[in-house]
Amino acid sequence: MAAAKPENLSLVVHGPGDLRLENYPIPEPGPNEVLLKMHSVGICGSDVHYWQHGRIGDFVVKKPMVLGHEASGTVVKVGSLVRHLQPGEGNWNRQLIKIVLRAAEENTGCDQCILLSRTLAQLRKRQLIQHPKTSDRVAIEPGAPRETDEFCKIGRYNLSPTIFFCATPPDDGNLCRFYKHNANFCYKLPDNVTFEEGALIEPLSVGIHACRRAGVTLGNKVFVCGAGPIGLVSLLAAKAMGAAQVVVTDLSASRLSKAKEVGADFILQISNESPQEIAKKVEGLLGSKPEVTIECTGVETSIQAGIYATHSGGTLVLVGLGSEMTSVPLVHAATREVDIKGVFRYCNTWPMAISMLASKSVNVKPLVTHRFPLEKALEAFETSKKGLGLKVMIKCDPNDQNP
Amino acid sequence: MAAAKPENLSLVVHGPGDLRLENYPIPEPGPNEVLLKMHSVGICGSDVHYWQHGRIGDFVVKKPMVLGHEASGTVVKVGSLVRHLQPGEGNWNRQLIKIVLRAAEENTGCDQCILLSRTLAQLRKRQLIQHPKTSDRVAIEPGAPRETDEFCKIGRYNLSPTIFFCATPPDDGNLCRFYKHNANFCYKLPDNVTFEEGALIEPLSVGIHACRRAGVTLGNKVFVCGAGPIGLVSLLAAKAMGAAQVVVTDLSASRLSKAKEVGADFILQISNESPQEIAKKVEGLLGSKPEVTIECTGVETSIQAGIYATHSGGTLVLVGLGSEMTSVPLVHAATREVDIKGVFRYCNTWPMAISMLASKSVNVKPLVTHRFPLEKALEAFETSKKGLGLKVMIKCDPNDQNP
Amino acid sequence: MAAAKPENLSLVVHGPGDLRLENYPIPEPGPNEVLLKMHSVGICGSDVHYWQHGRIGDFVVKKPMVLGHEASGTVVKVGSLVRHLQPGEGNWNRQLIKIVLRAAEENTGCDQCILLSRTLAQLRKRQLIQHPKTSDRVAIEPGAPRETDEFCKIGRYNLSPTIFFCATPPDDGNLCRFYKHNANFCYKLPDNVTFEEGALIEPLSVGIHACRRAGVTLGNKVFVCGAGPIGLVSLLAAKAMGAAQVVVTDLSASRLSKAKEVGADFILQISNESPQEIAKKVEGLLGSKPEVTIECTGVETSIQAGIYATHSGGTLVLVGLGSEMTSVPLVHAATREVDIKGVFRYCNTWPMAISMLASKSVNVKPLVTHRFPLEKALEAFETSKKGLGLKVMIKCDPNDQNP
Amino acid sequence: MAAAKPENLSLVVHGPGDLRLENYPIPEPGPNEVLLKMHSVGICGSDVHYWQHGRIGDFVVKKPMVLGHEASGTVVKVGSLVRHLQPGEGNWNRQLIKIVLRAAEENTGCDQCILLSRTLAQLRKRQLIQHPKTSDRVAIEPGAPRETDEFCKIGRYNLSPTIFFCATPPDDGNLCRFYKHNANFCYKLPDNVTFEEGALIEPLSVGIHACRRAGVTLGNKVFVCGAGPIGLVSLLAAKAMGAAQVVVTDLSASRLSKAKEVGADFILQISNESPQEIAKKVEGLLGSKPEVTIECTGVETSIQAGIYATHSGGTLVLVGLGSEMTSVPLVHAATREVDIKGVFRYCNTWPMAISMLASKSVNVKPLVTHRFPLEKALEAFETSKKGLGLKVMIKCDPNDQNP
Repeated sequence: MAAAKPENLSLVVHGPGDLRLENYPIPEPGPNEVLLKMHSVGICGSDVHYWQHGRIGDFVVKKPMVLGHEASGTVVKVGSLVRHLQPGEGNWNRQLIKIVLRAAEENTGCDQCILLSRTLAQLRKRQLIQHPKTSDRVAIEPGAPRETDEFCKIGRYNLSPTIFFCATPPDDGNLCRFYKHNANFCYKLPDNVTFEEGALIEPLSVGIHACRRAGVTLGNKVFVCGAGPIGLVSLLAAKAMGAAQVVVTDLSASRLSKAKEVGADFILQISNESPQEIAKKVEGLLGSKPEVTIECTGVETSIQAGIYATHSGGTLVLVGLGSEMTSVPLVHAATREVDIKGVFRYCNTWPMAISMLASKSVNVKPLVTHRFPLEKALEAFETSKKGLGLKVMIKCDPNDQNP
Repeated sequence: MAAAKPENLSLVVHGPGDLRLENYPIPEPGPNEVLLKMHSVGICGSDVHYWQHGRIGDFVVKKPMVLGHEASGTVVKVGSLVRHLQPGEGNWNRQLIKIVLRAAEENTGCDQCILLSRTLAQLRKRQLIQHPKTSDRVAIEPGAPRETDEFCKIGRYNLSPTIFFCATPPDDGNLCRFYKHNANFCYKLPDNVTFEEGALIEPLSVGIHACRRAGVTLGNKVFVCGAGPIGLVSLLAAKAMGAAQVVVTDLSASRLSKAKEVGADFILQISNESPQEIAKKVEGLLGSKPEVTIECTGVETSIQAGIYATHSGGTLVLVGLGSEMTSVPLVHAATREVDIKGVFRYCNTWPMAISMLASKSVNVKPLVTHRFPLEKALEAFETSKKGLGLKVMIKCDPNDQNP
Repeated sequence: MAAAKPENLSLVVHGPGDLRLENYPIPEPGPNEVLLKMHSVGICGSDVHYWQHGRIGDFVVKKPMVLGHEASGTVVKVGSLVRHLQPGEGNWNRQLIKIVLRAAEENTGCDQCILLSRTLAQLRKRQLIQHPKTSDRVAIEPGAPRETDEFCKIGRYNLSPTIFFCATPPDDGNLCRFYKHNANFCYKLPDNVTFEEGALIEPLSVGIHACRRAGVTLGNKVFVCGAGPIGLVSLLAAKAMGAAQVVVTDLSASRLSKAKEVGADFILQISNESPQEIAKKVEGLLGSKPEVTIECTGVETSIQAGIYATHSGGTLVLVGLGSEMTSVPLVHAATREVDIKGVFRYCNTWPMAISMLASKSVNVKPLVTHRFPLEKALEAFETSKKGLGLKVMIKCDPNDQNP
Repeated sequence: MAAAKPENLSLVVHGPGDLRLENYPIPEPGPNEVLLKMHSVGICGSDVHYWQHGRIGDFVVKKPMVLGHEASGTVVKVGSLVRHLQPGEGNWNRQLIKIVLRAAEENTGCDQCILLSRTLAQLRKRQLIQHPKTSDRVAIEPGAPRETDEFCKIGRYNLSPTIFFCATPPDDGNLCRFYKHNANFCYKLPDNVTFEEGALIEPLSVGIHACRRAGVTLGNKVFVCGAGPIGLVSLLAAKAMGAAQVVVTDLSASRLSKAKEVGADFILQISNESPQEIAKKVEGLLGSKPEVTIECTGVETSIQAGIYATHSGGTLVLVGLGSEMTSVPLVHAATREVDIKGVFRYCNTWPMAISMLASKSVNVKPLVTHRFPLEKALEAFETSKKGLGLKVMIKCDPNDQNP
């Protein structure tokens, strides 16, 4: 009986095809950590891959692992050394709380004020708002270095081999009710940024990191190969960084129409063109070769097209990953000084992403096409697996299923 | 009698306070040059300064000099080695010409087609369109290096001491009917970019170069001191390069309201605050210190405010120029690694500016507040001198006074 | 009686002019820390300043503080999480130990081998070598961030406002027998790098960081103002980074002759020249203006000379600090795009410095002019205060006073 | 009969296997050009390739072409606009001339002075020294842009598609007696830099450009694949830019011993190791993975080894070119953010190379193993073809065959 009520419902992969909703204990944050009540967690292709195959490359699920790493939530407890975040009990609408509190303070005896004052008292009684100061809402950067190694010291902590990373074996993710994380890698969300936008910072970060590695700058022409979620966030990041024109290619017309919707200047549906033909068409659409190509498919012919398409002196960034060995026209790239750069996750993207979301310079909301409560996580994963829509969002807070 | 009709009306400064409209011969382009029929030329503060004082620093008007360097026009003749531009007689609306030509070709006997076909014939007869291919419309980069010196070789040709620069003694500018220029520094305008936008690329370039030297990047907070034309183009450039929030300061409320209109997130009217107080207010508005400050006034206290305001590790760019010696809190800047960088004109900005204008990512049109035909250039200069409005545009083509 | 023998002799400043040798307890390293037996610690101008004035700017000695931050030592204990360093008891000559051990292992019965084997047994008996593996010798980076804040994340941890820094109030330094430090900021010294070279990495780091911020590159001409310790390490760093010619200026002929000795291509003694005259002389010596100027005096006229002297498009780095407000020809700097950058300590320099010392590409040994045992630290500080010689080294290990 | 004496002996390739010494007219320099009396010209692999195959990739010898592009000579005539160079008749030893002239001026009646004065008079009479000022000795940068296109403007003129380049069809090279060239791409040699060093700046530039693109910096560990001339200049450039340790690999022991001679810290002879094994051995020698790999062979397995060997976050530069399509472990490179960059020739290297040679920071002299007078150019090419030695130098001045 005592254990009847689930404390911390969590989505756990046990091995290939074995995904379970289980009750985990609520963790206790260490001195530099915060405990979070999870709100929104997006499903990533890698989550589905761990569920289907129990591994990604050398990362093998050897013991049960909680999935999820595109996430946001509310601070409910902070470690002894944490200064920049403050906890609270609720994730109640902060704007409303502010209005209520202000009205209560300014109570002039009018009917509305009296009503608000009573509402506040009731909310406090129900412990939905224990503090006049509400708790911080945060977006979670899933990778948090364990030590200040050589990569951390130079600002490329994503390359740290001992980094903690949510839902990469053996580290647990945050598809659960309560989750603890390094406080320095939880970033406060302004009131005008939603939890789902906060969760979408993770995929957006891939696009930002790719565009930054490419050196996308004012007036650039950019070629994005692939119109899946990563292609779309690369498109969004490129435009936000000042790209003048972006062309997106894909095999699927429906994905391309989504690309057009979120801001692509040109779309190009690929069927059976050769890499050189694709390059030629891209150049035709843009009026000249793109300075930057962001390859998001990992397909060999697409990488080849990226090399042929990119302007001399430009950069091809490899985001999509394919087979280990790839045959590419290296001489063509080298003699035109087209640099080939890969990306491994991201670093230093959350603060700028939050700034962009707060100033409404980037709109990620159209990426979310499905929502499921945590209790229906298995159904959510089936939806994601089928490739329906773009981003499936899991709502972890039973009391708040809003975006 | 034969020479009664002016061939090449030009606005010439002869010395302090001595500005004249005179008839100059139409120049002949060299092998690498093009002859341009001028269309729109903006008045810059430096033009007014040469008129008023006959000099700017070490640059002294020793012989009559044509003013003007913010300019666009139409190619009417090309030198023997020029490949990328083509001449024509008219600056007639290209879109209309295309419609007329297409309609004439597709003439199916309907009334409208017959009408269009006749119109085309008449236009050709009047030699307004001699070629089916219309002439190229171009924006002019006023600085064109005379030799491939050390600065040109490394891509910083603006620092070349022997550079030709429009309306900087002893080099003539382009406030005239016909003007010849280095073809490599004339940039073709797309159909959807107006001549005035083309002319405004020059001031916009100052903003772009400043922001680029500052390293403005995605999500940055930027502080722009001064809401004059250069402050406004810095604001526009910063936003286009991904700045999340820009605060603009000025003494004048009306200038600040223009800044708000063209995109400032925050404006701050300065009265008699100390530099430290200004820095504090800027930080308050932005929520944290700006990574970048663009100083456009040249005023000593404003430069000081810029140093105090800028985030550790950030950059202060000096665009405005004041007195030769300036007293600044260098230790404060140095120990927080706030870099202090100046700008001298610009380089490599026209192509990216045209891309941005073509993709409608930047809107410079609100900067133009007054227009005068070339014949009324003296009146235009009086208007500019009085500081009325922002940008005064002189229309050099008597047959086309459109934007 | 029991406490009669000093455990951890330490040099402590209590306030202006109040410097004492005191016995401190030996500290216990935390999980990420190591305990070091100190070997060589150089005296820095800042140490002398804290002793003389009890403060540097806003950093005030409010409670007794151990001095010293140019240091090297031997690991004697490691925290539970430390993996890359290993402790030992001695700092016995590692090369000798290796020879002895190898000979003992390969004992073939010859007389010499038997002798060596016995020697080894005796050393072990005397506990001078308890482990076949000897303890790690390390150089100490005195600044170790306390948290992964925004500056740490981007690789500029020197700007972190909460950083721990040896001998900067309120943090203790390492002029003592035993000292604990963040293990990630202790760097293993190869056998062919001495303890004193290890200690000199700290001042050398200032030079490296300055030259790196300046972007010193192959073939550069460099102007170093000031031939004190910081001027000399800037000279060494510039040459190591590929500078072709370095000119060093100073008021003192003897300091300049030291500069010549350690590698200056040109030296220039300053008397009462104007800033412009100094700039002209520097240009004369180098054949053209230097791309980089490293200002190490903080004197206003010297900073002015640095601006006049630097090549257009080049960089002036401010290392020396003078009065808060400085009058400089900013317009001259700005219109020639001469960047003005400061440095605050350094970051990411120890690994490269160790590589350079190990490969004998940099020779810092001539910088050490005086040595004192820790017991005579007060005498050492008097020597340093008088400005005799260059670097005074304090030897903290009573059993090993070698370089 | 009158034309019997060759005016401008030139080495001309007419097609595959067809190499001839022919007499060409002496060219007349244009306004921005200088006429040079050639002194030393090195044979490059590409020269031999044009001779053997009549083409390199898309560059086909369709009409007779003079070979040679690693060159230095003396200015004998300058165009009307040239200011920074001055002509003369001889390449007589300048130091000697200076001594002679000074002695003649200071003639005090002593025997030696009288002798010198007479010698001077005789030399003048024979017109070996017509001017008290001797003519400029220069190194020739073989690539000189024909127009200020987009690549020139950003400082990457090597990518300009219309660039003039010596001995690349259809542009003539400088293996001849007299040659004219763009004056801005002729760089004055200081007295202490020999003509052969001047000619060797061309191959050295390949190494400098590769190391600069790789971002070689202080303390780096560098892996150079291939110990031919390009491998050796990459090694020299890396060390000059501050690399701490360089390991060079090759199949040939004799080439490796030359690498050791010119400064390699480690050499590694390759036989039939797998790419991964080579990577492991390189890491073993250096103590850690190299931050930079310079691949100079173009061999597929060597490129693969370069990817496996390079440190995470580092750079692999492709200098050697192999077959068009190459199979590489792209995922391995991408996920560790190892950038892959090619080089096309070089830009902005001559001034820094001359500075380094003048300051004796780089020693290229050991690269020259053979010398032939221009008359024996065919024999020189046979020697080079056989791969004997390293650099074969052709001496074009019949009156001066010195280095």
